[in-house]
Amino acid sequence: MNKENFKHLSQVRVRNYEVDWQGIVHNAIYLLYFEVARIEYLKELGLTIDMKSIQGSSRVVVARNEVNYRSSALFDELMNVFTRVSYINETSFAFEGLMEEALSGRLIAENVSVHVWLDPVTGAPVRVGEEFRGIIRRYEGGTVAIRGPLT
Amino acid sequence: MNKENFKHLSQVRVRNYEVDWQGIVHNAIYLLYFEVARIEYLKELGLTIDMKSIQGSSRVVVARNEVNYRSSALFDELMNVFTRVSYINETSFAFEGLMEEALSGRLIAENVSVHVWLDPVTGAPVRVGEEFRGIIRRYEGGTVAIRGPLT
Amino acid sequence: MNKENFKHLSQVRVRNYEVDWQGIVHNAIYLLYFEVARIEYLKELGLTIDMKSIQGSSRVVVARNEVNYRSSALFDELMNVFTRVSYINETSFAFEGLMEEALSGRLIAENVSVHVWLDPVTGAPVRVGEEFRGIIRRYEGGTVAIRGPLT
Amino acid sequence: MNKENFKHLSQVRVRNYEVDWQGIVHNAIYLLYFEVARIEYLKELGLTIDMKSIQGSSRVVVARNEVNYRSSALFDELMNVFTRVSYINETSFAFEGLMEEALSGRLIAENVSVHVWLDPVTGAPVRVGEEFRGIIRRYEGGTVAIRGPLT
Repeated sequence: MNKENFKHLSQVRVRNYEVDWQGIVHNAIYLLYFEVARIEYLKELGLTIDMKSIQGSSRVVVARNEVNYRSSALFDELMNVFTRVSYINETSFAFEGLMEEALSGRLIAENVSVHVWLDPVTGAPVRVGEEFRGIIRRYEGGTVAIRGPLT
Repeated sequence: MNKENFKHLSQVRVRNYEVDWQGIVHNAIYLLYFEVARIEYLKELGLTIDMKSIQGSSRVVVARNEVNYRSSALFDELMNVFTRVSYINETSFAFEGLMEEALSGRLIAENVSVHVWLDPVTGAPVRVGEEFRGIIRRYEGGTVAIRGPLT
Repeated sequence: MNKENFKHLSQVRVRNYEVDWQGIVHNAIYLLYFEVARIEYLKELGLTIDMKSIQGSSRVVVARNEVNYRSSALFDELMNVFTRVSYINETSFAFEGLMEEALSGRLIAENVSVHVWLDPVTGAPVRVGEEFRGIIRRYEGGTVAIRGPLT
Repeated sequence: MNKENFKHLSQVRVRNYEVDWQGIVHNAIYLLYFEVARIEYLKELGLTIDMKSIQGSSRVVVARNEVNYRSSALFDELMNVFTRVSYINETSFAFEGLMEEALSGRLIAENVSVHVWLDPVTGAPVRVGEEFRGIIRRYEGGTVAIRGPLT
């Protein structure tokens, strides 16, 4: 992943209880950091994530997660988490996340997560919402690949 | 992934606090289930994982995680988690995990995790230990691909 | 707390990711163990806890938690968690939990949690449900103090 | 607890994965918030908490936790967490924590945690360190009750 492709930056500081018995941040915790950053990204773009939207007229679930761990995050370190939507397909889209230690720029981890838009009643995949498409396209510009038959 | 390739089965029951505000198991929790199963696998094969080994003469870290979420795990459901070592390279090896709901056989998630053997002092990758190689080979038999120059 | 007062036993095994950087189970995790045991207790008594009940016609929240940590739980140890309802008041009730290491009987921790019955619409405390009172009374018998004007 | 007694303020924002299936922050998570604030408190006073100190010449463990939940914390709310050392005894000391929603001042929870100083080799309680006593006394001034024979 190339840092230059990202426009959005979040920061999280490593907390003591996220450090495991090996003395490094536990491997599942990085998923939480990337998720926190994704939610800040959506919030900044005006896409409200709250209890109402979570249980409302659309439902988005995670279909795939990929993490490459490049070096270990340590207690009290501040993380830069860069976030972008890398593509939007017919019924799914993907986020990319890039995490580095803020002071040294040391690469910590990379994440790709794929999200599927579901009908909240039937549970079947449905087309990614138009409002979402528009907002992402305006924010990401040419760097987001919009795929799928209807785009 | 093919269930027939797995010899090892663990079970975990979904706990209330693992269910998120969407009413389904949070996406990071599946990594924990797969890890619990890996540790039971190693324990059953006589490969002790404890504080001493964790901070001892070898150090194994997770280099990559991949999860495909096939359907949502729900509160109180019992999960079958199948685990195997799928390959051993020179300085790394991989686990595969397959999770299904125990009663219905509903596929929940698949995981591939890559682990790297590090020198605990220098942090540099070193050859996966011989004892580990032998034990895994004896258990997995022909189904584990042993790669790397010295095997 | 006196083990003789308890009729219900649950078991949990300490998982690797529950161990913190001090090499012992993190202090917040004990709350989770006690909660898992409470839910098994309720389930065994036929009091279903599920998404429907959680978001349904009554709503029970935790008002207070007290934990005394007697000794540290360690990786892979099996815990006996004893659970009882110790009293029921007009709008609240309390659980007691006693946790010991299963093999040695080493005392690990004690918990008192107080739960309040709320009206799901107004959020105001309401009388603890009659069905709940009856079921607990039948199970706990003379050992549960039933307090409050209408009991 | 009286907000006027506190000199130290930390802030934490509620993350999505801390919200449980009831739509409110899970009861064990509040312990984590209070702990994050305690560690910031110690850090600000120059008392380093890191892997070396955690596994070093002294060892401090949590002996007791008490939480009163006053109202539910909700997703994305910003919490003010006030922290103070309320007393130091011979071998133990206590923190108090007061948490309110930052914008409205709504009281969320109160915490008292008791910490015991242990000899890292024998595990027996030892006198709370002199440096620690001095630093806390200078910071808290007359509001901290210093108890125990040698103070």
